[in-house]
This record gives sequence, C-alpha cells and structure tokens, in this order.
Amino acid sequence: MLTPLDESGEPNLQAVEQLVDWFVRAGLDGLYLTGSTGQWPLLNPDQRKAVAERAVRAAAGRIKTMVHVGAVATEDAAALARHARSIGADAISCVAPIYYSASPDATFEHYRRIGEAGELPLFAYHLSQVNQLSIDAREYVERLLAVPHIAGMKFTDRDLYQFGLIHAYAGERLQLFSGADELLCQAVLCGAIGAIGTFYNVWGVACRKARREFAAGSVEEGRRFMLVFQRAIHEVMRGQGVWSFLRGAMLLKSGIDVGMPRAPLGALDKPWPEDELRRIVEMVDAA
Amino acid sequence: MLTPLDESGEPNLQAVEQLVDWFVRAGLDGLYLTGSTGQWPLLNPDQRKAVAERAVRAAAGRIKTMVHVGAVATEDAAALARHARSIGADAISCVAPIYYSASPDATFEHYRRIGEAGELPLFAYHLSQVNQLSIDAREYVERLLAVPHIAGMKFTDRDLYQFGLIHAYAGERLQLFSGADELLCQAVLCGAIGAIGTFYNVWGVACRKARREFAAGSVEEGRRFMLVFQRAIHEVMRGQGVWSFLRGAMLLKSGIDVGMPRAPLGALDKPWPEDELRRIVEMVDAA
Amino acid sequence: MLTPLDESGEPNLQAVEQLVDWFVRAGLDGLYLTGSTGQWPLLNPDQRKAVAERAVRAAAGRIKTMVHVGAVATEDAAALARHARSIGADAISCVAPIYYSASPDATFEHYRRIGEAGELPLFAYHLSQVNQLSIDAREYVERLLAVPHIAGMKFTDRDLYQFGLIHAYAGERLQLFSGADELLCQAVLCGAIGAIGTFYNVWGVACRKARREFAAGSVEEGRRFMLVFQRAIHEVMRGQGVWSFLRGAMLLKSGIDVGMPRAPLGALDKPWPEDELRRIVEMVDAA
Amino acid sequence: MLTPLDESGEPNLQAVEQLVDWFVRAGLDGLYLTGSTGQWPLLNPDQRKAVAERAVRAAAGRIKTMVHVGAVATEDAAALARHARSIGADAISCVAPIYYSASPDATFEHYRRIGEAGELPLFAYHLSQVNQLSIDAREYVERLLAVPHIAGMKFTDRDLYQFGLIHAYAGERLQLFSGADELLCQAVLCGAIGAIGTFYNVWGVACRKARREFAAGSVEEGRRFMLVFQRAIHEVMRGQGVWSFLRGAMLLKSGIDVGMPRAPLGALDKPWPEDELRRIVEMVDAA
Repeated sequence: MLTPLDESGEPNLQAVEQLVDWFVRAGLDGLYLTGSTGQWPLLNPDQRKAVAERAVRAAAGRIKTMVHVGAVATEDAAALARHARSIGADAISCVAPIYYSASPDATFEHYRRIGEAGELPLFAYHLSQVNQLSIDAREYVERLLAVPHIAGMKFTDRDLYQFGLIHAYAGERLQLFSGADELLCQAVLCGAIGAIGTFYNVWGVACRKARREFAAGSVEEGRRFMLVFQRAIHEVMRGQGVWSFLRGAMLLKSGIDVGMPRAPLGALDKPWPEDELRRIVEMVDAA
Repeated sequence: MLTPLDESGEPNLQAVEQLVDWFVRAGLDGLYLTGSTGQWPLLNPDQRKAVAERAVRAAAGRIKTMVHVGAVATEDAAALARHARSIGADAISCVAPIYYSASPDATFEHYRRIGEAGELPLFAYHLSQVNQLSIDAREYVERLLAVPHIAGMKFTDRDLYQFGLIHAYAGERLQLFSGADELLCQAVLCGAIGAIGTFYNVWGVACRKARREFAAGSVEEGRRFMLVFQRAIHEVMRGQGVWSFLRGAMLLKSGIDVGMPRAPLGALDKPWPEDELRRIVEMVDAA
Repeated sequence: MLTPLDESGEPNLQAVEQLVDWFVRAGLDGLYLTGSTGQWPLLNPDQRKAVAERAVRAAAGRIKTMVHVGAVATEDAAALARHARSIGADAISCVAPIYYSASPDATFEHYRRIGEAGELPLFAYHLSQVNQLSIDAREYVERLLAVPHIAGMKFTDRDLYQFGLIHAYAGERLQLFSGADELLCQAVLCGAIGAIGTFYNVWGVACRKARREFAAGSVEEGRRFMLVFQRAIHEVMRGQGVWSFLRGAMLLKSGIDVGMPRAPLGALDKPWPEDELRRIVEMVDAA
Repeated sequence: MLTPLDESGEPNLQAVEQLVDWFVRAGLDGLYLTGSTGQWPLLNPDQRKAVAERAVRAAAGRIKTMVHVGAVATEDAAALARHARSIGADAISCVAPIYYSASPDATFEHYRRIGEAGELPLFAYHLSQVNQLSIDAREYVERLLAVPHIAGMKFTDRDLYQFGLIHAYAGERLQLFSGADELLCQAVLCGAIGAIGTFYNVWGVACRKARREFAAGSVEEGRRFMLVFQRAIHEVMRGQGVWSFLRGAMLLKSGIDVGMPRAPLGALDKPWPEDELRRIVEMVDAA
C-alpha cells in the first residue's frame, strides 16, 4: 500500500484511512504497510508507526494487515516489530539487510532477532535488487525455517526458478507471496499463494480476479492478461514517471490524493496527460 | 537434441539416427540440432554438418528439424546456414555473438548476414549467460523484425518479463520458444509456443504432456508438475554431474548410448548410482 | 572516521572528541565524518548532527573536516548539508541515491539539490556497491560539473579505469579521493589527490607515509606496501570480523574504545586473539 | 599480437613474419600469439598452428614467444599445446573454459590437462569477461600452483585487488602479466612483471618505456602517461571502431597491413579519418 503524503511531505493519515476503506470496499485480501512502495526508507520510525497504526485501526479486522518493519539497523526493525504487535497487526515482514553487504549468517541473524522481537508471523522480504540469495535454495529454506515465527516470504525477484525451489523444499511450511508484479500468474506455478506489489494499488481488483481465474483453470485468460499487464507496466516505466502515474491513477480511480513521494523518488516525474493515464489504467482493468 | 559421441569423441552418426527415430516414435514435435546441448562449440564445422545431415535425413519429414548454425565467426555461421538449407532442414537458429562483447548493432548485423545466407526461417537464440539484451524490449523487437527471414526466437533466460514484452510487442510476428527448461509452463504465459531445452531429451514426452494439459487449463497440474520438474533439475545439478545423468538417463529410457561429451564438459562427472538415476527419471515421468 | 558508540548503541561523543584529538596528533590531513564506516545509515539525523558537531568543534581548525550528509531522502540530506555549514565544516560529501534504483537524471538532481542547500564544497560519493555509473565517463564529468558547489568525488570502486577517465576529462576541476583502500597507491596513478577509507582509522599514518613516498618516486616501496596492505585487508575480511578487528585495533593503538557498531554490522563478529590482532596491525605499520 | 588476415579472411603469413620482424626491431620483450586480439576463436586449429609456426620461426630466438592455446574443448587446447612445443615456442597460455559455465574444479582440471600436454611453462589466462574467479584468492593460488608446468598468469580484469592478492599469496611462484591495458602501471603495484594486451601492438614501445620509467621511480611520469593512455583507449572505443583503428594505426606506424578481422569483429567499423588516427597515435607516443 502506498503511503499518502501531504504537501509538506508528512504522512497524510486521513488519506491513509480513506485508502484502507477503499481497499476494503474493493474486496482485497490484505494490506502490506510501509513497504518499499510505502516509502519506508524515506520515513522516520515515528512516521512509520503512525501510518501502520492508523491503517491497522482503519482496517478494524475487515482486511488482513502485514506491517513491513525492515530497517538498516536490526534493533530499529525489532522495535517496529514490537510496535506492530502492539497495534494488532496480523503479521510482519522484513527486508534482508541493505546498504552494507551481509553474509548469509548475518542475514539470518537479522531475521532471527526481528522474528523473536515481533512474536508475530514473519514474512522474510527478499528483494533481489538490494540483496542476493547467495546460498543454495535447499539450504536457504532450512535456515529460514529456523527463524522464530517465520511464516513465509515476500519474494521480489524475477528468478522464478529460485522461487519454485523454495516452495519445492519448504512445501506448506512457508507461505510465499510473489513480489514481482510483472510475473503475477507465472509465480502461481511456483507455489505463490498471493501477491504483494506496487501496481496492485491501482489494479488490485483486476489482478486479483485474473489471478483467481487463472488459478481456477483459465490459462488462456491468464496469458492474455499477463501480456496486457506486462505491457502496461512497461509503458508506465517508459513514460512520464512511475510516481506521477501512481498518483494520477489513484486519484482517477479512488478520488484519493496520495500526493507525491519524497525526493529523490518522483523528483523528475511529469504529470501524465489525462487521456494517456486513462488509457493505461483501462487497458488493464478491461483486460 | 544431444549429439551422441563415440569413445574417441567423434559424433556417432548411427546413434544420431537412432535418437531421431526414438524421438519420432515418442511423438515429439521437432528437433533442435547442434545447439549448446548438442555441443556445437566443441565440434568442428564438418562434424556439425555431418550430424545435421544425418539427423535431417533420418527425420525424413516425420518431425520438424531446426539446425543451430551459430558460430563465433559470422561467415562460419552463414556457411552452416547455407548447408542447413541444402540438406532440407525446416529452420535455422543462431546464437548471438559470443566471447567478444558485441554491441546491439553488431548483434543485429550478425543475425542479418546469417538470415540472408540461410534463406530459411531464422530463430534468434538469446542465451543470457553469454550475451545481454542491452536495449529496450520494444526497440529489440523492431530491430529483430528487420532481420531477413526472421521467424522467432529461442529465449534462454529466466527473466520472463523480457520474454513477455517481446511477445507483447511482436505479437504473431515472432514465434517464441522457451529455452529455460525450469520455467516451461511459466513461459506459456509469456507467449511461448513451444520449448527447446536440454532436459527434453530425457523428459520430452512428460514435459510435452504437462505443457499441453496446462495450456488446456490444468493449472493445478501445471503447478504440481513444475515443482517436481524444478526439483529434479536441481537434484541433477547438485548431484554426480549433468552429463553423466543425461547419458545414464538416455540409456535407461531409450537404450541408446549418447556417450560422454568432450571435455571440459562432464570431465569430472561421476556415474550415477542406478537407483538414484531411476528415482529422478521416474520422479518427472510419473509427475 | 569511525563513529564510536557506547554500550547502549548511542554515539559516544566523548570518544568522538578523543578520536579527533588522536587523529590530529597523528598528523592526518582530514576527517570524513558519518560516512559508511561512520555508520550513517544506522544513526538518526540528530545523532549524525551531534557526532559531526562534536567532531568539528574538537577539530577546531587543526584538521580539515568533511561531513557525509547522504540520506535516502534528498531533503534529509539537504538538511544535514545546511547543518554541516552551520557548524563550520570545511566540506560535505553525499552518496548517490540508494535502495531505490535511480536514473542518472535522478542522481544528478539529488546532488544538485544537496549542493545548493549546503553551499559548501561538495564531494559526490560514488559507491559502486549500491549505485552504478551507467553513463559514459565523459558525460558523467560534464553533468557532475554542473552540480552547484561541486568540488570533487569520493570514488569507491575497484574500477580504476573509470577513475582515471573521470580525472582525464575533469582535470583540475574535480578533486578525486580514492575510496577503495585496497588500491590506495594505484589510485594515485589515476589522479587521486588523497584517500578516504575504513582502514585509515587504524593505519592512517602508515598509509599516508607510504602514499607520499610512493608519490615522491618510491615505486618499489609502494609496491611492497600495497601487497602487505592488501594481504592485511584480506586477512581481516576472512578472520573473526571486520568490526571486532577495528575495535580491537583502535583500542590497541589509541587506547580509545570505539565500541561495536549497531547490528547487523558486527553482530556475529568474535573478538580477535590479542596476538593475531597485534600481528596484523604491525604487519602494515612495519611495512 | 594481431593476426594479420588477407582479403579472403585467411591468415596472411607473410605479414605475420613482417610483424614479428617489426616487433623485434622495436625492441619488445615478447610476443603473445593467437590470443583474443589474435582472433583465436575465429580461426580453425590449422590456421592457428600456421600462424604460431610462422611467428615462432620468424622470431628465431630474437624475441620470446608465448602461444595462446585455449579452446572450447580441452583436447583441442592440449593438441595446440603439443604443437606449440613442437615448433619451439617458449611458453603457452590458455584461457579458462568459455561458453559453458565451469566450476572451479572443472577449470583447474582443464588447465591440468593442458599443462600436462604442453610440457611448456603455462600461463593461465583469466579473462573476467568470460569467466569469474569464484573462489578466494588464497585458495585459487594454491590450486593453480598444483597445475603441471604452471608458470604464471595473464590476468585480464580491472579488479586489481584480486591481482594483488594472487601475487601476495603466490610470491615468486607465479609470474603475473597484466592484461588490462588501461591499468598498465597500476598493475605494477600489484606485482605484474609485464603486460600483454591489444594496444601494445600500436604503442608497445611507448608503453614499455613508460612502464619501465615508472617502475624505476618516475611516478609523476607514470601518472601522466596513464591518463593520456586511458583517454586514448577511451577515444578509440568511442570512435569509428577498434579494429579499423588498429589496422589504420599499424599501417601508419609499421607500413604493414594487418587487414580487418573476421566478422562480427569490426563488421561495422568505419575507416578513421587520417588526421584523427594520427592525432590519437601521437597522443600516446608523445606522452
């Protein structure tokens, strides 16, 4: 879920609440709060707590909530994990160590302390862009399963062979969420039980429907949908800017202004022409 | 298709013929000759021609044949392309330039000359391990479509987003074959119309059946099959050796001895224990 | 410069002062504050300001100070840049955008805003581990020179060809500091006018001497020193832990306890046996 | 050493002889035959043997000769190694396995068989572009030293830390040649005893002189030379083409026409304007 900001760059808690309501009404299954799309690295801990708290309260049990608590410092993440539990979140998630390169040992120790602190189901967040899986999938699974309260993963990597191997070795012991939007249905074939990603803010309903129909046997539909979805993502990436697209598309569909993110994100984005925006939004919704 | 070698490292043309017959009887749709699995870089042009010729003759129109003609030197590939036409192959395929880094301009010029020489449907072979797609998918498609006789691609890369984008922009103008065995069914969702890969020597029938059933709507079957197939591939890679596995598995299933490849391939492989071999082979066949 | 922490993980400002004094007495040329070695991503802005302020005050003009102000959010970095000026720092430095991938345009816009805010000589910090130079060196130089107050770079990358090209095209317009300790003298040949790096906390005097002697013509000495230095770095990396080494070595040489960093840094480090520590420390000091 | 080709793409053995004479007269220390610059992957074994034979005969003991015998197939390389000995070459060199990814075990086995076959001093050729050093430097050295007749390395990688570590652990047991022209003098500081590379065809004399003067203590000269040399390389890479530059520059300086290489190399090169060519050639010669 996007973190709406106001003009001054502060979290807009009223918009947070509106967004949650909108997602509940749309019938989505869950909310992933203060993740990368939610600008966690650009917010301070108090802002993150405020956003998570308001969202969980607004959810009021009507929709599941998973709070991303990852941070550069293990203890900062652990504190956020404790907070997530205190506000009644359903689960937590945590990105692997960033910035400083971390050995597998250091990565699992990081997860271990956060899982222990959170005492909530923990979903390890593998983001290939900032951290590599440098060990064999089988060993990875065994070590991850030793993390306290581990419940699954958010796996954001286009390498679906690794995804499938993790499922093959973990079986039902890990619940895997697909994090690469552009491979939503493909990941179902690797054992993904759901998907968490940026573009589901805009197209959550369409994607959920396509994913379900595909999972129920509409392969041709899934194929057709994925091609349209991939193309839409590609057009957004090549166009006026991802963040101005997200803002414009959310405004168009929900009437909620999520604002622009903190720079450097979106700093050079230009507004999308209304018709372009509408065309791309409808391209996926009508797929 | 594997290139069978005899004890002295020469192509075993009798076994080539037997293999072709076996694949025809198994009901496969086509043969990809002297590709990477067929050891093209380890054979000289005369050996490659002999293998292709014998295989095409043995196919005798009962099964489609595509000859991989890629070579380090453009003109060597062009000569092989002309030869492929002269022996009646149905199509040719060609890997992008290897060893020396090649700009996109140089890559398309390489393809252009080979397409022109072959006058047969040409399938560009993208092998991410030796050559990167360094341009945007949309531009890539436009440039590839300008290659004479271009008919499609063999796309061997785990990045299925690029695969899907190529299909999204090329539509029916390019026939795409999946080259990453471990993502066989996933690639169907990106527009793959077929698959070409190492492990189909052993499991071609099972994979073809699973792929077809999946494409016809058996998503749960596809998912289950892919997990077993990925795990089998992973076990082969971690075990006594890929090449000794291929030899043992082919002997087990077809009775044909494909021999061991030229070193360095398989140079350190150890024979697989009979029961291990049988277990892995059956794991996929029974999936 | 390391940021000393106390038992509770808070910056130990008294030790900051002691460290500054020790480096002044050692005759070093300058201090780089709250960089990666100074744990910037693990400290909050108030802690960073406190450390920089105490260090600049302790320096009291006896040694140059450059404050690293990089942050995920541009405005956070700009605020730190303004603070650095307010406390009388000599220069600022700023890492390129991290975590979210940034285009060259976004990177230069990030630098631009920070340079404008700081009104102090700005040294762009290229850290290859988190951000790539994805444009040609010549264009890079031209664009960097357009950043307000730009004065040079801290270039932390083993690719010294890029380093040299930047110098070749920038000439005297950019002052380049080498950031890869393991290539200290090699970088002199690419135009480095100085070096900033982790291991100079421990071996700053020895490295400064070796670098100077080398620059003055002692090539054989430089060669010999670099081999010892590279080997020492390698032994530290393979041993009980980098951070426990730094703590032990600083205690040994300066008597100042810099403490252990915030986890995940050093979380699994073990203390170095006294004799091992002493052997490695002396290996470089006596080189 | 470049392999001169005639119009039809065949090795021009007369020009080979002329080139050898020219290099002898220029006072170079040795010749590296049929390496990457010598187009080994574009020549067949008979052509390679003919080039090596003519060059070694022309050298006639006046200059050292090292024949690159690397090939995709181990046995092809071994046969070339035996041939190199039979013609009286001084040493052989061999690139690590290419095209198919090779484990460290497979790489050392490849070297082992070739060293055993050649019975000549063997220089392992590490080319980072096609093969990674995936093991720790210390272990790499120990394993390399177990290869029969191993004498050193040609190390073509910009990562000079690895270069230095190999020297640090091997000491005098391995003679290391620098293969990255753009870091010629930098590599001296890592223990390089010489350099082998493309641009020494054109600028061998100037580079040898600069390298020697640097090694003898002219650090400022070395620095100045390297900046000019790096810039010249960069201009060649960005200009009309590397191969047309090499041809034009060789013709200009030696009067020998080395021809153009086999495509795809140089296939899109355009001729350099005479004055541009002359300017760049003199830029380094006068440095």
